[in-house]
Amino acid sequence: MILHLSTWPEIEAQLRRSRTIVIPIGSTEQHGPTGLLGTDWLCPEIIAHRAQASCAGILVGPTFNIGMAQHHLGFPGTISLRPSTMILALRDWVASLSLHGFEKIYFLNGHGGNIPTIEAAFSEIYAEASYVRHRAGLALILRNWWQLPGVEALARRQFPRGHGSHAEPSEIAVTQAVYPDSIKIAECKPRIAPTGPIRDAVDFRARHPDGRMGSNPLQATAGHGEELIALAAEGLAAEVERLAAATGRG
Amino acid sequence: MILHLSTWPEIEAQLRRSRTIVIPIGSTEQHGPTGLLGTDWLCPEIIAHRAQASCAGILVGPTFNIGMAQHHLGFPGTISLRPSTMILALRDWVASLSLHGFEKIYFLNGHGGNIPTIEAAFSEIYAEASYVRHRAGLALILRNWWQLPGVEALARRQFPRGHGSHAEPSEIAVTQAVYPDSIKIAECKPRIAPTGPIRDAVDFRARHPDGRMGSNPLQATAGHGEELIALAAEGLAAEVERLAAATGRG
Amino acid sequence: MILHLSTWPEIEAQLRRSRTIVIPIGSTEQHGPTGLLGTDWLCPEIIAHRAQASCAGILVGPTFNIGMAQHHLGFPGTISLRPSTMILALRDWVASLSLHGFEKIYFLNGHGGNIPTIEAAFSEIYAEASYVRHRAGLALILRNWWQLPGVEALARRQFPRGHGSHAEPSEIAVTQAVYPDSIKIAECKPRIAPTGPIRDAVDFRARHPDGRMGSNPLQATAGHGEELIALAAEGLAAEVERLAAATGRG
Amino acid sequence: MILHLSTWPEIEAQLRRSRTIVIPIGSTEQHGPTGLLGTDWLCPEIIAHRAQASCAGILVGPTFNIGMAQHHLGFPGTISLRPSTMILALRDWVASLSLHGFEKIYFLNGHGGNIPTIEAAFSEIYAEASYVRHRAGLALILRNWWQLPGVEALARRQFPRGHGSHAEPSEIAVTQAVYPDSIKIAECKPRIAPTGPIRDAVDFRARHPDGRMGSNPLQATAGHGEELIALAAEGLAAEVERLAAATGRG
Amino acid sequence: MILHLSTWPEIEAQLRRSRTIVIPIGSTEQHGPTGLLGTDWLCPEIIAHRAQASCAGILVGPTFNIGMAQHHLGFPGTISLRPSTMILALRDWVASLSLHGFEKIYFLNGHGGNIPTIEAAFSEIYAEASYVRHRAGLALILRNWWQLPGVEALARRQFPRGHGSHAEPSEIAVTQAVYPDSIKIAECKPRIAPTGPIRDAVDFRARHPDGRMGSNPLQATAGHGEELIALAAEGLAAEVERLAAATGRG
Amino acid sequence: MILHLSTWPEIEAQLRRSRTIVIPIGSTEQHGPTGLLGTDWLCPEIIAHRAQASCAGILVGPTFNIGMAQHHLGFPGTISLRPSTMILALRDWVASLSLHGFEKIYFLNGHGGNIPTIEAAFSEIYAEASYVRHRAGLALILRNWWQLPGVEALARRQFPRGHGSHAEPSEIAVTQAVYPDSIKIAECKPRIAPTGPIRDAVDFRARHPDGRMGSNPLQATAGHGEELIALAAEGLAAEVERLAAATGRG
Repeated sequence: MILHLSTWPEIEAQLRRSRTIVIPIGSTEQHGPTGLLGTDWLCPEIIAHRAQASCAGILVGPTFNIGMAQHHLGFPGTISLRPSTMILALRDWVASLSLHGFEKIYFLNGHGGNIPTIEAAFSEIYAEASYVRHRAGLALILRNWWQLPGVEALARRQFPRGHGSHAEPSEIAVTQAVYPDSIKIAECKPRIAPTGPIRDAVDFRARHPDGRMGSNPLQATAGHGEELIALAAEGLAAEVERLAAATGRG
Repeated sequence: MILHLSTWPEIEAQLRRSRTIVIPIGSTEQHGPTGLLGTDWLCPEIIAHRAQASCAGILVGPTFNIGMAQHHLGFPGTISLRPSTMILALRDWVASLSLHGFEKIYFLNGHGGNIPTIEAAFSEIYAEASYVRHRAGLALILRNWWQLPGVEALARRQFPRGHGSHAEPSEIAVTQAVYPDSIKIAECKPRIAPTGPIRDAVDFRARHPDGRMGSNPLQATAGHGEELIALAAEGLAAEVERLAAATGRG
Repeated sequence: MILHLSTWPEIEAQLRRSRTIVIPIGSTEQHGPTGLLGTDWLCPEIIAHRAQASCAGILVGPTFNIGMAQHHLGFPGTISLRPSTMILALRDWVASLSLHGFEKIYFLNGHGGNIPTIEAAFSEIYAEASYVRHRAGLALILRNWWQLPGVEALARRQFPRGHGSHAEPSEIAVTQAVYPDSIKIAECKPRIAPTGPIRDAVDFRARHPDGRMGSNPLQATAGHGEELIALAAEGLAAEVERLAAATGRG
Repeated sequence: MILHLSTWPEIEAQLRRSRTIVIPIGSTEQHGPTGLLGTDWLCPEIIAHRAQASCAGILVGPTFNIGMAQHHLGFPGTISLRPSTMILALRDWVASLSLHGFEKIYFLNGHGGNIPTIEAAFSEIYAEASYVRHRAGLALILRNWWQLPGVEALARRQFPRGHGSHAEPSEIAVTQAVYPDSIKIAECKPRIAPTGPIRDAVDFRARHPDGRMGSNPLQATAGHGEELIALAAEGLAAEVERLAAATGRG
Repeated sequence: MILHLSTWPEIEAQLRRSRTIVIPIGSTEQHGPTGLLGTDWLCPEIIAHRAQASCAGILVGPTFNIGMAQHHLGFPGTISLRPSTMILALRDWVASLSLHGFEKIYFLNGHGGNIPTIEAAFSEIYAEASYVRHRAGLALILRNWWQLPGVEALARRQFPRGHGSHAEPSEIAVTQAVYPDSIKIAECKPRIAPTGPIRDAVDFRARHPDGRMGSNPLQATAGHGEELIALAAEGLAAEVERLAAATGRG
Repeated sequence: MILHLSTWPEIEAQLRRSRTIVIPIGSTEQHGPTGLLGTDWLCPEIIAHRAQASCAGILVGPTFNIGMAQHHLGFPGTISLRPSTMILALRDWVASLSLHGFEKIYFLNGHGGNIPTIEAAFSEIYAEASYVRHRAGLALILRNWWQLPGVEALARRQFPRGHGSHAEPSEIAVTQAVYPDSIKIAECKPRIAPTGPIRDAVDFRARHPDGRMGSNPLQATAGHGEELIALAAEGLAAEVERLAAATGRG
């Protein structure tokens, strides 16, 4: 069930069955010479939509498609929120969902750079309750899609060399499976990109001239992607069903 | 051309041809018994994607899918930003795009309730330049899709009675044309909903028990929607091409 | 009755009679070669004070005299708030008034550029209630003085050509009627000023070298002003009395 | 010269003569049974306008008429900004004035409760320059009208007993001199009000049931007020002329 | 009793005895050629820790060690918060302490430049209660250590000339008494430093080339410091005991 | 070298030798029945001060002693910043240090709950540069003291069972080594505390009634602490020296 393709009476009915919702969250940022700018939100969106298609009880909300990508701003097309802005936006999303009765809000994340800001946002939200000794009545969950059961292991088997940590063949493969018309061809030199610390955007581009970090994305195929999607969607569905079934807030 | 399905080198190349980008912007909010919660961002997204499909030079960015919908929070599924949050988010979007060289940022809007906040955000962004006597170098444009040439007139012809001002048959028709599997059937009583002032969410729901304002959305059909999309997309393409061709920032 | 010329026991007594207050709101900004910098707050202040003088039941608060005028900052004397600052200030004004029991707060506005920010502020204020499903118990009303019954028509009759949209003869006439010692004489070339989009201050001054937008303010006389004040004050008084008399919050 | 009764070319001309401006600043807050709610901004406005009337070189800006009065919110009619809001508003005022070339901004204050917030605002403004090792190029000056040369001594002579620290006979006398139609008559019991610490509004009203702090305002007369205005206006004019004449920023 | 050297059950027990806590607060900023950068927080920390050592009932919290020192940023080692940041930090400290039941929070301050910001923060905190007509239930107290009974008089006796207003011999003496290994030797020319207004950091350093304001700190000795500490600690202990014993919130 | 026990000329001289500074950062929060409320800032402060004592070139700044501890607010004595406040405070610290020429700012952290907020703050700081394509010229480094070389392994050898993840015997041992007068004795039941997710403060206290998470802190001794301090200080000194020696910003 997809929230934005539902009516409010349908969501009202769904809330009588489950207090759990999945929010795909990612980033619009450069992904090297061949990766799509939307890779980091397309991946969790693809996986979450696949999971709900096979599992009627899962509700998926709109995708949070602009994240914390300040270090990629040196590459055209990247759009980033400041951490402080993203914290406020997440606060408003959660306040809205919580008002309707959602108690378990599960963010399926596609961008490593979002993690600290999302976790800080969770603390900001909980703190409002903590300062006044109220029970927040919320379980806010952050889950990276590549850490769903078995997914990282599969990616490492698929790409034993040059998986890297940005513009990875696994995430590119996921988008190729669903957007075959947008598969890009480009050279990548060196084949495996350099690694290094993450600081500001000028520093980042100087260290990573084509945007990749330690990866060789040319290995990606739609077939790899389909395998990853299937496994991740299955894992997500199982995890969300367990969460929804847990008494209390798990 | 769709930004999130492009690579950064493709956007870099596009920027050598045009400094213009279209951002669909809307809201996730109740749209009465039969309208999708995503109606207000699906409509501008549908129209913008249609326009770029027929006009190679148009670049469309990711959809800003959560807007200012505080008055709809009394209905399950609505997700709203505060105006202050939305202003900060738009500031960050524009700062990112401007950094890459975009000079004409055209927001195609699907939600009337967004208008003041988007305009306030534009002023907030311009003010940063104005306080230090810099030239912002930006044309920020807000355009409601229903005000593209001929669109409102077509909708009035299609739905001479009960068009109303929220959960209108025209916007619902647009989503029906593209998401036929999500066409909803429900009763609407009274056939034409009441109107009234817009204040807080409790007040709104008391005045508009099923969420509609002055509309009879049951008149919508996918056929109506297809007509509206075609006309709006054509108008958008023409307008954006003129904008891109204008010297200076128009 | 003017709040700042009253004591707190007088306001306490007034609150037992009426929950309505009028707040003149405007801007301090350039108004072309002959218009006063205070024009946009002087006009609503003049009209509101006139209305209360003839109608004992109307309470007028202090004038909000600095508004959103970032685009006029290229001209000496303009003082502007950022939209985000103005939203916070309005939030504090309304919180103060609401605490005392005012339920209908009627902003009589003198500056078109304030409109989006004031409306965004209203939504920001209502949202605090909406996120927690409280009834705000407030009717926040924005009314431009030139849209009071008959006023715009009168101005168009008075100035059939060159009324324009900034530094208009009508608003200048209103100030001339009350501040005859401050009537200014200057040349205006061209007689009718150019129009154009509103962006940042440098851009604005380049398009509108003497500050006017589409207007010929030299037509203004104190006589015109007196006619406008009388009509607007009468309309305001009638409107506020109706509002105060309405059951609920209208 | 009064800014809001001037045109932008007049201010441009004035800036060639002087980089100094006076801003009356106060508060709208209860002033006991007989004091006007506007007392704290009317006093500095009255004095500043008097000073400029007799001294052509002095420029007076619009009055900042809502200040930091949270502790008076227990009394109807009080309107207060939060300190954080007031800091932002002052930042925007100063940014606007500084942009035009004003270098010495002299706030003539009428409300003791404003002092910390105004001083914090000055530091906030200076800090923007300090963090980047720029010269702010600004002298921000806070002056309480009762501390102008001789004024406090005169008030103590006029009212040797029961001057107190809020709703004082001296400030009420100043308003009586200029607003004779708004002189109020009421009982004050006890004749001299109690004193105590200033905390939140509920605490304040419990300590000061009629709003006065240590004062007997019934002693005020318009004659006292006229004496105070004359002395304060003379002192202000002398001080501002010295300031304007000082090389550098004094 | 020192909070950070206690366990939570010990604080819980202490709260049954007293609702009062002392927070040393200061600044990390240049103190001339011989003064320690930590002088302004070391002094109140030293005095508060001495007081609690001799008076079992006094609880001292962690030291707020970075304050508002924007004007000293021209000198290496100064670390400053903006006033707006410091207000938020104090709000969070007070919210935490208030939640546990502390009702009298006594800030022992070591930096004059902190005073407006601390007082503005108190108003900000109280305002949250005032806007909703709640009783804050808090007494927030600001006390400068040099204004404890007899301390300023002692300092003036110890240093009849060249005490000044920054990098004073008295405060330096206090640190010398407790940190004898950190006594510094340097020349100070002129012997007594100049005075002047406080604005931004570039302006400040131009007026005060070695950082001192009106002082000759070379007069300081550990002996002087020990006298000051003993007197101040005694005064603090007496004052805090009286405060704690007062019924209500004093 | 300790910044707050140095003068500004000493820091100026130090900056000619090294652009690196160490900032201990932690939290004031409950640490179970026997752990000090200051444990999380005392540990990095102890280790950093030990390292600088043996290695003349290392500069240590003041300790950031209140962190993000909202989940511990259910226990008396805990003082927490909101993440948003902590981000602003860190921004101001870094702006101050960067202004003086520090380029490598190394935060030695003592509290796991601080990690997301510190990392979000780093991104917030870098973003200011990234949005305008400036080089930030900063390396911001976050290092948890327990992850210094060999430290975690030593702790696991010292406490093979019941180390846990909050109120751990290792951190308590570190404080015992330096504050022997503050060693606390209390019962801990059950011997090894439960574990669970971290949400708001009410939820946390319900899951962890005495504040511990998975730990048996009664195993701690000052001897264990001394071993840990020695190893951590040695590792820190080596790491900071390498960092300072690296060309560029490492």
